[in-house]
Amino acid sequence: MIQGIGASMGIAIGKSFVLPNWEWEVPDNKVDVADFAREFERVYEGIRTSKFEIQQIKDELREVVGSDESQIFDAHLAILDDPVFMNEIQGIIQRQYKAAEVAVKEAIDHFVTMFDLLDDDYMKERALDIKDVGNRLLKHLLGVPEVTLPSDTQPFILIAKELSPSQLAHINPDHVLGIVTLAGSITSHSSIMARALGVPLVVGVEASLTEPIVTGQTLIIDGSDGTVYIDPKEDIISLYNELHDRQTEAKRKLQHFAECNAETPDGKFLRLEANISSLKELEIALAGGATGVGLFRTEFLYMDRSRFPKEEEQYEVYRSVAERLGGEPLVIRTLDIGGDKQLDYFEIPEEDNPFLGYRAIRISLDRKDLFKTQLRAILRASIHGAVKVMYPLVTSVDEIRAANVVLAEAMRELDAEGIPYDRNIPIGVMIEVPAAVIIADLLAQEVDFFSIGTNDLLQFTLAVDRMNEEISHLYDPFHPALLRMIKTTVEAAKERGIKVGVCGELAGDMRALPIWLSLDVDGLSMSAHSILPIKERLLSTRQDECREVWRNLQQCRTSSEIIGKLEAFMELKDEQTANG
Amino acid sequence: MIQGIGASMGIAIGKSFVLPNWEWEVPDNKVDVADFAREFERVYEGIRTSKFEIQQIKDELREVVGSDESQIFDAHLAILDDPVFMNEIQGIIQRQYKAAEVAVKEAIDHFVTMFDLLDDDYMKERALDIKDVGNRLLKHLLGVPEVTLPSDTQPFILIAKELSPSQLAHINPDHVLGIVTLAGSITSHSSIMARALGVPLVVGVEASLTEPIVTGQTLIIDGSDGTVYIDPKEDIISLYNELHDRQTEAKRKLQHFAECNAETPDGKFLRLEANISSLKELEIALAGGATGVGLFRTEFLYMDRSRFPKEEEQYEVYRSVAERLGGEPLVIRTLDIGGDKQLDYFEIPEEDNPFLGYRAIRISLDRKDLFKTQLRAILRASIHGAVKVMYPLVTSVDEIRAANVVLAEAMRELDAEGIPYDRNIPIGVMIEVPAAVIIADLLAQEVDFFSIGTNDLLQFTLAVDRMNEEISHLYDPFHPALLRMIKTTVEAAKERGIKVGVCGELAGDMRALPIWLSLDVDGLSMSAHSILPIKERLLSTRQDECREVWRNLQQCRTSSEIIGKLEAFMELKDEQTANG
Repeated sequence: MIQGIGASMGIAIGKSFVLPNWEWEVPDNKVDVADFAREFERVYEGIRTSKFEIQQIKDELREVVGSDESQIFDAHLAILDDPVFMNEIQGIIQRQYKAAEVAVKEAIDHFVTMFDLLDDDYMKERALDIKDVGNRLLKHLLGVPEVTLPSDTQPFILIAKELSPSQLAHINPDHVLGIVTLAGSITSHSSIMARALGVPLVVGVEASLTEPIVTGQTLIIDGSDGTVYIDPKEDIISLYNELHDRQTEAKRKLQHFAECNAETPDGKFLRLEANISSLKELEIALAGGATGVGLFRTEFLYMDRSRFPKEEEQYEVYRSVAERLGGEPLVIRTLDIGGDKQLDYFEIPEEDNPFLGYRAIRISLDRKDLFKTQLRAILRASIHGAVKVMYPLVTSVDEIRAANVVLAEAMRELDAEGIPYDRNIPIGVMIEVPAAVIIADLLAQEVDFFSIGTNDLLQFTLAVDRMNEEISHLYDPFHPALLRMIKTTVEAAKERGIKVGVCGELAGDMRALPIWLSLDVDGLSMSAHSILPIKERLLSTRQDECREVWRNLQQCRTSSEIIGKLEAFMELKDEQTANG
Repeated sequence: MIQGIGASMGIAIGKSFVLPNWEWEVPDNKVDVADFAREFERVYEGIRTSKFEIQQIKDELREVVGSDESQIFDAHLAILDDPVFMNEIQGIIQRQYKAAEVAVKEAIDHFVTMFDLLDDDYMKERALDIKDVGNRLLKHLLGVPEVTLPSDTQPFILIAKELSPSQLAHINPDHVLGIVTLAGSITSHSSIMARALGVPLVVGVEASLTEPIVTGQTLIIDGSDGTVYIDPKEDIISLYNELHDRQTEAKRKLQHFAECNAETPDGKFLRLEANISSLKELEIALAGGATGVGLFRTEFLYMDRSRFPKEEEQYEVYRSVAERLGGEPLVIRTLDIGGDKQLDYFEIPEEDNPFLGYRAIRISLDRKDLFKTQLRAILRASIHGAVKVMYPLVTSVDEIRAANVVLAEAMRELDAEGIPYDRNIPIGVMIEVPAAVIIADLLAQEVDFFSIGTNDLLQFTLAVDRMNEEISHLYDPFHPALLRMIKTTVEAAKERGIKVGVCGELAGDMRALPIWLSLDVDGLSMSAHSILPIKERLLSTRQDECREVWRNLQQCRTSSEIIGKLEAFMELKDEQTANG
């Protein structure tokens, strides 16, 4: 048994298949002056094919894992469009009379060496991108086939030194039971993609590996705790087989709860809604038991295109989602770009700290033209369902008032044009910046509802970028400060009689359920796959028990005490369920 | 009259001098194979001289403006050390038989074009650095003299399109009364340096300029509001002359207050201490009326060197400062690198959001070896004065306890070695992350004092990087959330009976004084130049009046209401002073 890091949940049992390296021999072919034009054309042709291929991967991926993850390929496309890269290749052909494939190989080596030498992590990442995309281009020039995984054998567990997003994109979950990589981290792009694909993944096994894994060995991997068994004994295999079956059964059983009401035994009803970013995701969410959408991220409408979407295009999407929800609530969050979400056609100046930068409502209030277009589309959709509008990243009363001025303007325009809309459309704000919590009582007087965004709120509250591996251990959702801030926010909302929900990742964390029940929040909005597990737990958890737990939590000084108490409560409930 | 942006306070009246451009003709000289070695040597020699020159500028600047500002030249030194840059130059000499100066010129052009083409702001900045440093190298190869400003004429007002830090570094405040740049922003490095040098600066006048300013015109510039008069009438000149004299007189008058006790008319004593980063700055602070050091930034000890400072070196500095203070308090903040403060010899992986990253106490707790060395040095210095130790960026009880474990270990070692130290050295934390405010009651039970760092606290509270020009208008020190957080922190400290002070920029903001007095904080620590103006105001401001103001502030919903009330109170006091 060896120990890695669990990067994507699930158990896989099967034979290993070790991925071969992606490198080719390039013969040192020379050309004449007369051949230059032909060699240039070969390079152009290779670039065109590579771009087409990358675009295809990107499109396929977006279907499966969403647009956030598929965007990693934009960097690859940008390199192929870069005139500096092309100039270097042409220069080598012309000056050194080398064939296209040799010139491409040398240009890649040149850039990779140069960027590597600059001794700067940003540059080194660019070097990796160039290498990845350069290999793809070389592949076309040499006419070698794509390295593919066997599809005629039994499904297997894939072993690789490291998987690039490019390689992961080609994986067919029907043939790959699970993946083990020697290097890698749980926050890498590849790990994010594996989780989105639902493929069990263990990374970073290199350190505990005494001899290399070879193709054909029997493996068990557990993506939740990072365990890997190599050629395990029969009893271990049957143990994990049983565990695997139990997980599958539990998944099947959960499906029963899709139809139940989300209500505790003592009668507290909690709205369980979904976070979505497309109509497609709405279907998954509805199948998974969501009653409404607590967060419609409208960014996806703006991505993967060359210009801002017109009012009509937005209206069509908002209307479709509202109609499909048939009267269940739909909270549409206005454009939340900036930070780590960029648009190709809207340049934000390079920022030292994009999370603390020009983004979300700040852009909307700066670009009122774009903002008004979106608000008009939302207003027009409002007559097709229970539509609400929500402003992201709000920090002050002033911002809400400024946004409402634009909304009022949009309403006046629609009035003048005789276009119908819901005149009483509820207006809410994300509570995701510490300032918003601190003045929640003031904000509550300006809006109809709050939605607490725990992810950003925690990042700012602790000054921790959770994507930063060096400090991700400090990103602690059970930090007592966060709990107090949630309490302050909920109390401010209740004091004023407005609705309050939670839409950050913590909403889908089983351990946090007693917090929401004791504070008596109105709803939770989460990823579709979390809804049923939370619902199952909710059906057997009494609100009054939670209030008891909450009283204990408020005595805690550290998050480990808080987690300890919440987990003890969960185990208690598990036992009760098992016994009765 | 034209309108620019005031970037460095003060009035200047005098003749204009327009800075010529820094560009040279490079004749296209060729060389033979036999000359290669000589040409290489010329390049090496030029690089050596340039490096020496840059190092000199950097050292001189550090004396004047501190080490933060002088670090901008590190990027220039790095380029001269970059093997890629040298390889490119040698390549041009060898392949194209060109002389050293031609090769340098072409290499610069090549890199600048390449980085510019990459269409990435990070790259464009690198392009500017290469251009600046390349021009310096070219200057040496061509043997042209430095572009200098006249020193034999009357002092003048310098006009430039834009000033690079390189150029500003050469400015002699005795010859330059003030500066006007056509482009530029108040947050640029050059603006920061101008403020540090105390030279009035107006930037960004281009838009309102109908015809270019030429050398020899009479100008008046006001760096506080960005006004520039070109060839003004006599009455305007005498008006500004009077204003200028009044400002000079006010400065002189302030000096009287250096000796007074910092006490309000109704007997509230407020410690007015200085933020310093070197012994030299301590002298300025003491001359400026500081009673103690509320924040000794130890980073400077770690900068501008090739390895971590040894315990002995640190001890010498801490002891000198403690002794010089003669029993007045000295708060030593432990190493606060990371974020925008980097060390040449300690690489922090490239971070997407360095302000939310691996920095300050996070590094100290990760690198306990470094941390213990610093703590040992501080402990040893503690017997030479009233030394206190302060941990930066603390977010939890756990972190304080972990830091104290290292401190206890350092104490045990010193005990074992028979080295004396203050066993009861007070331990404090910076309150500069929202989480710390929210759990201030818990933190107060772990330490002896708090120091509120308003700059970082506000950045995280509002999710605004104040160096980001796109959103710097949102960086609002009078945001009601910040005021409430300050109140929470002070009350938590008082409840527990520990000391609490303020050491962010707001401590030196005149308008904020009523806040500190009404909350009854124990001390303020600020830049040396703010101490006397604050003290003057303090001497005529009653604490009970401030409490009245504070009650009014708590009704405010927006920062503009808050600022309005604070400014009204200031005007009231001004009138009282004028009348009485």
